[in-house]
Amino acid sequence: MQPKIKLSGINIRKKQVFFDQILIKTLTSRFESPFFIFSQKRLIDNYQLFYKAFNQYYRNTGIYYSIKTNYETKILKTLLDLNASTEAASYLEILLAEKAGFRGQQIILDGPAWTDEDIANAIKKNIKTFNVDSVDELIRLNTIAKRINKRVRISFRIFPEIKMSILKSFIEGYIAKFGVPISRAVDSYRIAKGMSHIEPIAISTHIGSMITDPSYYEKAVDRLIQLASILKSELNINIEEINIGGGYGIQSLNYYSLQNVILEKAGISNYSKAAPIEDFGKRIANRFKNQVDKYNLGNLKLILEPGRFIVSDTGILVTKVVAVKDKWIFIDGGINLIPESIFFIRRGFIVANKINSRTNHKYNIAGPSLNTADVLAVDQKMPKMEVGDVVIVLDAGAYSLSRSNQFTLLRPDALFITDKGQLTYLRKKESPSDILNKLL
Amino acid sequence: MQPKIKLSGINIRKKQVFFDQILIKTLTSRFESPFFIFSQKRLIDNYQLFYKAFNQYYRNTGIYYSIKTNYETKILKTLLDLNASTEAASYLEILLAEKAGFRGQQIILDGPAWTDEDIANAIKKNIKTFNVDSVDELIRLNTIAKRINKRVRISFRIFPEIKMSILKSFIEGYIAKFGVPISRAVDSYRIAKGMSHIEPIAISTHIGSMITDPSYYEKAVDRLIQLASILKSELNINIEEINIGGGYGIQSLNYYSLQNVILEKAGISNYSKAAPIEDFGKRIANRFKNQVDKYNLGNLKLILEPGRFIVSDTGILVTKVVAVKDKWIFIDGGINLIPESIFFIRRGFIVANKINSRTNHKYNIAGPSLNTADVLAVDQKMPKMEVGDVVIVLDAGAYSLSRSNQFTLLRPDALFITDKGQLTYLRKKESPSDILNKLL
Repeated sequence: MQPKIKLSGINIRKKQVFFDQILIKTLTSRFESPFFIFSQKRLIDNYQLFYKAFNQYYRNTGIYYSIKTNYETKILKTLLDLNASTEAASYLEILLAEKAGFRGQQIILDGPAWTDEDIANAIKKNIKTFNVDSVDELIRLNTIAKRINKRVRISFRIFPEIKMSILKSFIEGYIAKFGVPISRAVDSYRIAKGMSHIEPIAISTHIGSMITDPSYYEKAVDRLIQLASILKSELNINIEEINIGGGYGIQSLNYYSLQNVILEKAGISNYSKAAPIEDFGKRIANRFKNQVDKYNLGNLKLILEPGRFIVSDTGILVTKVVAVKDKWIFIDGGINLIPESIFFIRRGFIVANKINSRTNHKYNIAGPSLNTADVLAVDQKMPKMEVGDVVIVLDAGAYSLSRSNQFTLLRPDALFITDKGQLTYLRKKESPSDILNKLL
Repeated sequence: MQPKIKLSGINIRKKQVFFDQILIKTLTSRFESPFFIFSQKRLIDNYQLFYKAFNQYYRNTGIYYSIKTNYETKILKTLLDLNASTEAASYLEILLAEKAGFRGQQIILDGPAWTDEDIANAIKKNIKTFNVDSVDELIRLNTIAKRINKRVRISFRIFPEIKMSILKSFIEGYIAKFGVPISRAVDSYRIAKGMSHIEPIAISTHIGSMITDPSYYEKAVDRLIQLASILKSELNINIEEINIGGGYGIQSLNYYSLQNVILEKAGISNYSKAAPIEDFGKRIANRFKNQVDKYNLGNLKLILEPGRFIVSDTGILVTKVVAVKDKWIFIDGGINLIPESIFFIRRGFIVANKINSRTNHKYNIAGPSLNTADVLAVDQKMPKMEVGDVVIVLDAGAYSLSRSNQFTLLRPDALFITDKGQLTYLRKKESPSDILNKLL
């Protein structure tokens, strides 16, 4: 029915669907639909796969998991036990990391618009590095650091101005929104170096999301290491770390674009597939090593900030069909829980109770909310569908719970299968009073 | 600086910006940025304007406010005191209405995917009418009504298949997703009539969102009243109410479309402006009256389900500039709080501390989250901007709090100015523990 089974944590044995080692059918009778379920084993496997992909080619590698992708405490704890560090996008995320056991020196703070309070709190927590987005931010950071009387270690987020396809640039939106253009990087570091409480020690970037081709990272590596060399020779700044951010495409998701829609309408299946993570690791780490050698930059550390790759397929959303209407099926979980637009990403679906039926029908899959845009798939090949069928939304682990909202509906249970096979909760479903009590 | 002041609840006196009767500057020094602020007076005015627009031309009119647009308790209470009824999109929304004091008979339930539990609870609460989206839903409704041993009054949501512009249909997405096509309406009502615990008494529709031209509603009125006549003659079903839903465009928002973007790039300002609500009321109500007379349908009731028109400009979001970077300014509130895409709607902005400066710069306005799509405006004409400037986001009352999320950030205060001029809260800002305590 769908080809992504190897990648999704889903197993099919004797015509039954398992996630990790748990039979989905035993859950649907026990928990109210819809519910998320996450696999700790899958999470560990993804992390180790990612780490190894880079580390085997360049030893001095640090992984800072992007908290915003999924900030559930048990997810973060698992990653801490694997020696990961974290990237926080706000002070709230520093608190989320702390709850899971991370200390300040294991946290990088990132983001374009910290408040003064965020900055002060982060400094007090001894955050490892501040990835500064603009000179305005730097000025505020220095002022506050001075007041607190602590020196802070920073990188600038550099916008490396790599040419991507026009289509990709269009869909990604406003890539130039974040960071300092590389053409102004030296000036910005010069300003930083002149500040009393700022210590520039790293260069960071983030080139996009769902990048399918490692060559974009290779170009970023070239430019950032060249920049490190210039900073050393011109400003005597000793860069210790190059942080190339996240955005590594994963193979279980299809990157959706206007071009692909048109090709598909013409009967040509042409979705962009990401390269395997082994390719990203090998090419990026080797390029890094070569460039470090070329510019004689000693033991420069390579920092990576993966998010989606680590958690996307560690979670699924298990839903039930509530109504079938010609080409439309309505399931009981939708964009409130899976907010990423189908114009960007196409994910996989499994009909758990019809695993061996032929997928000779096409449906649009709608969520339950009274919202025109609550659509999870268009023209999805499925078996003939009926009310009560169990539809599993794959790759529900990234940007789902962390971006979920309560538009007309409460948020559901999120279950967690530990690596010992125990079933527990990440969070329990909301009750009406969670909302009602907020309203004065 | 911007031409929508008359419609936004904003007043400018002696170079100072007031919302309702409150000086914004007194709030920015007192409350942490960002914050929402709502005006009860504006809410009352909007409701009365809307009601009168229709009621003066057709007396038998009922207004069911769409709860999902903004479900804050004090908003709902104000509308209850004005004799409004409500449209709920889920069982949660029935509870929200009840909290504000509405009884079951003042609530219509709408939506494509109720759970069995939703239906049972709604029946027990004596909900006035169920707007049924599909025959599947009807079957479940009858089964549950039978079990509870109560007859329920229903309408079908009819998809009237009115031709809109291709552009509008494209942007609105999947309009055919909701409701029963009018070509199958008679068959569906026949099925309903044959059911033991179903009483079909109304016809409903919802033709879209931000409709700028009343003629679409006139066409819908024609088709639904003609359908009522057929149901009477062919099936002996006595339709009491025609519900033409919501979607009435408002004049303070610009409808954004690809076509308009291209025209603007060519220097031609050509945004779609909605007709005044008086025109919607006059044309829709008169058409309704004429058609009722034509088909001799006695005292058919006209039901309206406004949402955005009632609450959009009753609320503003007051933010501060956190960073300025060439063409980009970053403010401390963004799409977490104002989730509607700028590809659909263009709203107004006011720089409260620079109200008399010339708007001779163009900026992209970004929110604070580490999300490429967190952009509230592109090429917005503004004065020269600096860190600390106060940017007011207008029309922040609809689909804002009700669809807000907690992606990396907490939700802020929402203040409320009563019609007596008292400042109070709709809800208080979240604390980290609101999130941390949910995570197990």
